[in-house]
Amino acid sequence: MIKKLTIFGVGLIGGSLALALKKAGYCEKIVGCSRSEDHLKRAIELGVIDEYTLDPVAAVEGADIVLLAVPIRAIPHILKTIVPHLEINTIVTDAGSAKGSVLAAAKEAYGGTLPANFVAGHPIAGREKSSVEAAIDDLYIDHKVILTPTSETSSEAVLTIKEMWQVTGATVETLDVKQHDDVLAATSHLPHVLAFSFVNALSKSEYGDAVFDYTAGGFESFSRTASSDPVMWRDICLDNKTSILAALDNFQQDLAGLRDSIQDDNAEEIESLFLHAKTTRDRIIKKS
Amino acid sequence: MIKKLTIFGVGLIGGSLALALKKAGYCEKIVGCSRSEDHLKRAIELGVIDEYTLDPVAAVEGADIVLLAVPIRAIPHILKTIVPHLEINTIVTDAGSAKGSVLAAAKEAYGGTLPANFVAGHPIAGREKSSVEAAIDDLYIDHKVILTPTSETSSEAVLTIKEMWQVTGATVETLDVKQHDDVLAATSHLPHVLAFSFVNALSKSEYGDAVFDYTAGGFESFSRTASSDPVMWRDICLDNKTSILAALDNFQQDLAGLRDSIQDDNAEEIESLFLHAKTTRDRIIKKS
Repeated sequence: MIKKLTIFGVGLIGGSLALALKKAGYCEKIVGCSRSEDHLKRAIELGVIDEYTLDPVAAVEGADIVLLAVPIRAIPHILKTIVPHLEINTIVTDAGSAKGSVLAAAKEAYGGTLPANFVAGHPIAGREKSSVEAAIDDLYIDHKVILTPTSETSSEAVLTIKEMWQVTGATVETLDVKQHDDVLAATSHLPHVLAFSFVNALSKSEYGDAVFDYTAGGFESFSRTASSDPVMWRDICLDNKTSILAALDNFQQDLAGLRDSIQDDNAEEIESLFLHAKTTRDRIIKKS
Repeated sequence: MIKKLTIFGVGLIGGSLALALKKAGYCEKIVGCSRSEDHLKRAIELGVIDEYTLDPVAAVEGADIVLLAVPIRAIPHILKTIVPHLEINTIVTDAGSAKGSVLAAAKEAYGGTLPANFVAGHPIAGREKSSVEAAIDDLYIDHKVILTPTSETSSEAVLTIKEMWQVTGATVETLDVKQHDDVLAATSHLPHVLAFSFVNALSKSEYGDAVFDYTAGGFESFSRTASSDPVMWRDICLDNKTSILAALDNFQQDLAGLRDSIQDDNAEEIESLFLHAKTTRDRIIKKS
């Protein structure tokens, strides 16, 4: 049970957590904080939060848990603002898609050492829309939330954040920071980067817009991630740069091999590569 | 109205055409031909075809239209077998995903000159499954069929094939052969090649299968085309090699530019590229 939860950035992610906790009766008071008063008023109207303030310092006063559900590049500034005012027992967590950069920002904000009660986290859930209007109380059911505690993090703080997410119906797992960033770079960030680039490459076609006149289901599903929020994904690329570049290089190496097989009319090799991919994907999708 | 339609390869594509024509009462007799008698018997049971034969020469006897709906690499052999036995008025058409290679095979089978009554075609439709069991009478409704007549093709033959596809509810358009192959390479063949390679690159992760433990919707949609039939896509890569390699090179060039922007922390450039892709895709999807 949480007495006071403060959410910075009451959008899809923060708002959906608030709704799920309210539904479960797991939180006495949820306070929203952001730079947009209109936005916070809307969150009140929608019953997502109980109170709001535009003042970050007032927002964290007496909070059991502070969730940073803002765009990932906004986290460092908020941390710098609130850390000097946090009470000793307040646990701070976040929902950013990259964890190494968030932990680095936290370390800096906390004066060079990560505190016991900072728990980096990443709920793996989303919808096409990202505003508070899109928040739903069942967003996290059967979804995974990854926490990346470090050696400094207290196991009690981890347990508190774990329980909070479990109340929403999520499965909570812990991962090493680098493993989180590498794995998410490969399975989530890379397909976004590739889809953006794929659509851009096509848009430069000598046939102009006519290149898009005969698109079918393959195009639509493959390019879906290219309709994602450009600013959010720009920030993820900047924040998880190292892992994303590594994943990109692995992909380009594999693609160069496949290109050679096509160039050489190597039917056997092409079929073997395609079969391996199909077998792998069918196994993954069946499991999930 | 067609008196006799012969279909080589009664799978999803040929079978769905047969069902649509039967439903419309547009065809008196549909004869199936393939190398598998079990398969043809199943097509009879399902009411997809009226008769079958394992003999290609008998199959085309007296046919108004012969449709080659076999895997694209099987087309040259069938053409060689049937061409000497075709009646003067029989129109031959196909359903292959690449058109330059099919026309080259036809030219060879017809002794070096394309005849007036060979109409290369490509219905842009598909389902996850590809067997005759997956055939449905509404597969082509609101889908496009592209015909790529050459200067040798008679406009009457084109009209006959156009009408046949229109009866199924499809929109029929004609395109230049090279434009068809380039455009389909970019919007359909390339996303298949990339998705196969993407899944393979991930399968080589240092984290083993654990890399796939946290996949979400982005992975699933982006990799969907990697669950396609490896043999069919191998053949498309071999048959449309030139256009696919060109599309692949364009993509790799674009991706290299995006990689540089990430490497250089060029936030403005990354955002601009992502925004351009999103704007383009949202416009395309809205139109379609």
